[in-house]
Amino acid sequence: MTSTPADASPTPDIDATADTLTEESTRSGLTAEQYKRKMERRKAVQQERLAARTVEKGLIIVHTGNGKGKTTAALGMVLRSLGHGYQVAIIQFIKGAWEPAEKAVFEKWPEQLDFHALGEGFTWETQDRDRDIAKAHAAWDTALTYIRNPAYRTILLDEVNIALKHGFLTVDQVLAGLAEKAPDTHIILTGRGAPKDLIEAADLVTEMSLVKHPFREQGVKAQPGIEF
Amino acid sequence: MTSTPADASPTPDIDATADTLTEESTRSGLTAEQYKRKMERRKAVQQERLAARTVEKGLIIVHTGNGKGKTTAALGMVLRSLGHGYQVAIIQFIKGAWEPAEKAVFEKWPEQLDFHALGEGFTWETQDRDRDIAKAHAAWDTALTYIRNPAYRTILLDEVNIALKHGFLTVDQVLAGLAEKAPDTHIILTGRGAPKDLIEAADLVTEMSLVKHPFREQGVKAQPGIEF
Repeated sequence: MTSTPADASPTPDIDATADTLTEESTRSGLTAEQYKRKMERRKAVQQERLAARTVEKGLIIVHTGNGKGKTTAALGMVLRSLGHGYQVAIIQFIKGAWEPAEKAVFEKWPEQLDFHALGEGFTWETQDRDRDIAKAHAAWDTALTYIRNPAYRTILLDEVNIALKHGFLTVDQVLAGLAEKAPDTHIILTGRGAPKDLIEAADLVTEMSLVKHPFREQGVKAQPGIEF
Repeated sequence: MTSTPADASPTPDIDATADTLTEESTRSGLTAEQYKRKMERRKAVQQERLAARTVEKGLIIVHTGNGKGKTTAALGMVLRSLGHGYQVAIIQFIKGAWEPAEKAVFEKWPEQLDFHALGEGFTWETQDRDRDIAKAHAAWDTALTYIRNPAYRTILLDEVNIALKHGFLTVDQVLAGLAEKAPDTHIILTGRGAPKDLIEAADLVTEMSLVKHPFREQGVKAQPGIEF
């Protein structure tokens, strides 16, 4: 079915074709029959796509960027993992406590989910770099106990990128730890300013960008249910 | 404290100052004392920031872009809303069923959460535009019953942007519906290709961009706990 040379990955071509067909199908003026034909081709492309993707593995996932949704999307992944019955751990590197609403949710899975808030607050609250460094190291040691335990299928290292950005932890230290994970384990690292070497090592990297933000533009404060 | 003219929003300046101070504090070579002074200034800026942001309101939130995490981050917001004890509704516009893991999670809140999957599968599965349009209209009617009910504090219209992109629903129709929401209600609209007029009308817009994706680059298939 594919005309891609055997020595090249067929994947980018399939993806481009899928996007083009979807784009074309949204144009006005297509008859029902033309639409149906586009969708038949789109389906064939989708089947080709799925056939080309057979690798199963635990992923190193990074959520970075200045937009919203880095931790929030990680919580959505935690939730799916819990729904699959996986053992999950969350380590929060910056804050010293969970928001009550998050805590109330986490407590629904007392057997499956371990969660720790091991920071001491934002850097501008502590104002003490040595203490921040000591806290980050202690949090990392806790994270390592989960990373080394193959029973944990999903591990969220929340705001760890902030600890990296401030130099509280080194990238080499974190990469060496990630290398110890079991093959099936997913590890999600969140926070702005993810270092380049971490992005290189990751399997899935999403950048959340701010298009419009009510804090900035309308004087809106953080809203319960959205930000905490 | 602020030198911003009274007729200009002070907000962008405060944010730039906050970012600059954070950036400067991560540079190596600062003494502990210099770091502390930067963080003291950073804290003052943070207090100014919070003081400038006092508006409380339900938000219209859009997650768009070609990256991962649009629905996932919305699920994280749903989870926080549930943790606050809010009544929540989720309407899925494209798929006709929930993933079992998501369903297992949603069922933890039988009293607080209503969830409906009212699509019929991806457009390339149905291959029938008229049926897709009819399904999208029926889903929108259901969404409206929740939008008009002020008891629901958070409403997720999942993949509704896809229905807009394909023209199954019109932007005017959706904007007119959003205008009927109660002032406290948050509505989250997800999916790639959010139309410009929706972005204009929204309070908070995040674009999720793909930096690196294992489907495309490594032949990795969708992984349980991450994508479903």
